[in-house]
Amino acid sequence: MRRPEIAVIKGDGIGVDVTDATLAVVDAACAAAGAETPSYVEIGAGAGHYAAHGRDIEEGGEERAGEADAIFLGAIGLPSVRHRDGTEISPHLRLRDRYGLYAGVRPIKAYPNAPQRLADPRAAGIDMVVLRESTEGLFYSAAVHGRSEVIGDSEVRETLRVSRATTEKLHAFAFRLARKRRERGKRGRVTCVDKANVFTAMAFFRKIFDEVKADFPDVETGYNYVDAMALDMVRRPWEFDVMVMENMFGDILSDLGGGLVGGMGMAACAEIGDTTGLFQPAHGSAPDIMGEDKANPLAAILSGALMLEYLGETLDQPQLAAAAERIEAAVEAGFAANRLRPMEFGGDMGTRAITDAVLAGLDMAA
Amino acid sequence: MRRPEIAVIKGDGIGVDVTDATLAVVDAACAAAGAETPSYVEIGAGAGHYAAHGRDIEEGGEERAGEADAIFLGAIGLPSVRHRDGTEISPHLRLRDRYGLYAGVRPIKAYPNAPQRLADPRAAGIDMVVLRESTEGLFYSAAVHGRSEVIGDSEVRETLRVSRATTEKLHAFAFRLARKRRERGKRGRVTCVDKANVFTAMAFFRKIFDEVKADFPDVETGYNYVDAMALDMVRRPWEFDVMVMENMFGDILSDLGGGLVGGMGMAACAEIGDTTGLFQPAHGSAPDIMGEDKANPLAAILSGALMLEYLGETLDQPQLAAAAERIEAAVEAGFAANRLRPMEFGGDMGTRAITDAVLAGLDMAA
Ligand SMILES: CC(C)[C@H](C(=O)O)[C@@H](O)C(=O)O
Ligand SMILES: CC(C)[C@H](C(=O)O)[C@@H](O)C(=O)O
Repeated sequence: MRRPEIAVIKGDGIGVDVTDATLAVVDAACAAAGAETPSYVEIGAGAGHYAAHGRDIEEGGEERAGEADAIFLGAIGLPSVRHRDGTEISPHLRLRDRYGLYAGVRPIKAYPNAPQRLADPRAAGIDMVVLRESTEGLFYSAAVHGRSEVIGDSEVRETLRVSRATTEKLHAFAFRLARKRRERGKRGRVTCVDKANVFTAMAFFRKIFDEVKADFPDVETGYNYVDAMALDMVRRPWEFDVMVMENMFGDILSDLGGGLVGGMGMAACAEIGDTTGLFQPAHGSAPDIMGEDKANPLAAILSGALMLEYLGETLDQPQLAAAAERIEAAVEAGFAANRLRPMEFGGDMGTRAITDAVLAGLDMAA
Repeated sequence: MRRPEIAVIKGDGIGVDVTDATLAVVDAACAAAGAETPSYVEIGAGAGHYAAHGRDIEEGGEERAGEADAIFLGAIGLPSVRHRDGTEISPHLRLRDRYGLYAGVRPIKAYPNAPQRLADPRAAGIDMVVLRESTEGLFYSAAVHGRSEVIGDSEVRETLRVSRATTEKLHAFAFRLARKRRERGKRGRVTCVDKANVFTAMAFFRKIFDEVKADFPDVETGYNYVDAMALDMVRRPWEFDVMVMENMFGDILSDLGGGLVGGMGMAACAEIGDTTGLFQPAHGSAPDIMGEDKANPLAAILSGALMLEYLGETLDQPQLAAAAERIEAAVEAGFAANRLRPMEFGGDMGTRAITDAVLAGLDMAA
């Protein structure tokens, strides 16, 4: 058994705080589960890096990130450091593109005692995943800075791209994920979310969904237009499980889902490709509270669990998957026993206290 | 004073039911307010028309629609009648394009006793407008059927377009609307909703917002990325007023907003251009319940009120605006007194009963 190697980009703002918290939890969970503790290679990148060094990732950093078994990213972005056209410095978008990180997994789960936005008590049963295609769709234009078409000062065009190759992989991923979730006692169905009534590209997205579906006859499926899906997410989100969709749609609906179950402080994210995966909290870098022990590290910690689960599979080391389960169980039990009370939810716990509570919970969750 | 002339497209499914209900209410409101009763020219169009006649709008219908003072549209679409690529028959998209109906006004308002999805009691104060650009953005590709780029069976591309000309008009519309709303005692501020951190086209959208803003120094403004906006719509929607955004974003967020305040049965919509306006409920054609007295006609009736308000302004006939106010007051008072109980909200009233209740309320709302 070899040690998994993780490329770590702490990035900007609270990216640093939540990454430190996560690596501590990951190490402890691996030790508790008898798994190899990962080794970490830090890579400088982000808006701060750009301001200091004139490039958004250190030399050779992009290559080194791809050579590791997985990439962990804290958060990137500073409001004061931007491209001339106003868009953000984003080596992250380039990493998604370069390593084909097509499968953006964004779980949305209501934890006990976490704030519920919806009045209906069934909202306590929200447990779904936005599967956001993460390399093309509308972001095709933004993956490589400068791909937008600028026509003087009178017009700008962006391109939304749906390719068969990526969409086939994406849908197959959705079906496999639904199966896995069903085995764990969850709903385990897939909803294809698109706008096939209007866009040829979306009708194509749905057509490929139907083709791939034929290979997974055991998985229940549904369809929803993206506008109706947004409505259903506030009307009956507890009925959905895996929802697969285009990049921009996934960006919007995953934040909406995050809002339903408390906020972005719980929004974990995995972006998985054929040869590596990138794991990051879906929240921003909140530079105003950096280093103040205020950030909720749970989105990052849960992303760390997704990373361990991924490593367990790809390196064929079940102990790593067991470590992932420990983290998830510690968070679940922590909320249930009211030992996790993030400030973000009106509680009294900052970054360190939350991290300590999760660490303490790892041993209980055997 | 001349009679306003309305081009009426009842369309498919419940489009017929809710249009009939609306015209009855419009006529009665005009009579009660001492306004000229409109004259109506019916135009055959829709998926049913396509199935029967091989074209989606009757010959000369598109031109005649544009010659009237306004267009009222019930609903269009039948699941069984589609283009070969799976997209829907949509003369509506063509009308938006042809007549430059750039300003899609979609009010989102919590009526008393209507169901609240959100647990926070402040949700009773939701009263905002999604201003959806309605001719370009991502729909640029779909406005004219066949504009999508199809690359064999391996890829489809769509184009998102943000033009200076349209965006300037859109933002100016947003500021005027916010002013008007402030005069009526509402919040009266504008939030620019975009994804300016990623897309050059969206940074351009925001840049033009800032330019136009200089002409309206009295109007308070804010910015929000579309993903954060989706989250804020479930976290603190009562803080927003006019939210101006790209076409696809507006499609998604207006349905989300509709969901917050009960469902699409309340979702009124105006699409306004330089020379005419189109008014329609934002819901679909629900052919399964057509003619069964089940559809909630309130979205259509409230769209009728938006139409009268528009006609009052453009024809300079204040009595028409007074008729619009009567309808809005009748709906508001009807909910407050529990005289409006749509089936859609778990109540006992179908299309006819709701229409009658609004009609009865018109005289009280003097
Ligand atoms: C910061 C931005 C590039 C990013 C995205 O839109 O993908 C973020 O919003 C996210 O959801 O991960
Ligand atoms: C049916 C469709 C063309 C339409 C749209 O997306 O514009 C509808 O969803 C709407 O919101 O009016």
